[in-house]
Amino acid sequence: MAAVEIRIELKKGVADPEGGNTKKTLESLGFLGVKSVRSVKVFEMELEMDPEAARVAADDMCRKLLANPVIQNYSITVR
Amino acid sequence: MAAVEIRIELKKGVADPEGGNTKKTLESLGFLGVKSVRSVKVFEMELEMDPEAARVAADDMCRKLLANPVIQNYSITVR
Repeated sequence: MAAVEIRIELKKGVADPEGGNTKKTLESLGFLGVKSVRSVKVFEMELEMDPEAARVAADDMCRKLLANPVIQNYSITVR
Repeated sequence: MAAVEIRIELKKGVADPEGGNTKKTLESLGFLGVKSVRSVKVFEMELEMDPEAARVAADDMCRKLLANPVIQNYSITVR
């Protein structure tokens, strides 16, 4: 059994409306000093395979379904 | 300047439709051995304050806006 964390974030320069709106809302609530907010998506998975196979499978999942390579980067952590 | 990561996840026992649907779609694409998928939301922030103040501010942000304490847990990492 492998515990896998897949972290998907927008590439630099790609607009992040969720992050931008969160920043604005925090400011409207009175929070000062918020220089930037970026939103990140994480999937935590349990895969019934050994860690090496899990890393290969997770990479395949990102390419086939989870990430959009035009605008997103992804990273995989296997424990 | 403090780099803050806020990680928001559903409490145990709370239904995770996004994770569940991702698992089903991965299986329909032929991925075997996917035991569970959980979705997690992360916000990365730069806050113009010292790390201690940043941790207090981030906790306040979670309570006032970012997390729903009924169904979500959050954790804060300051670098």
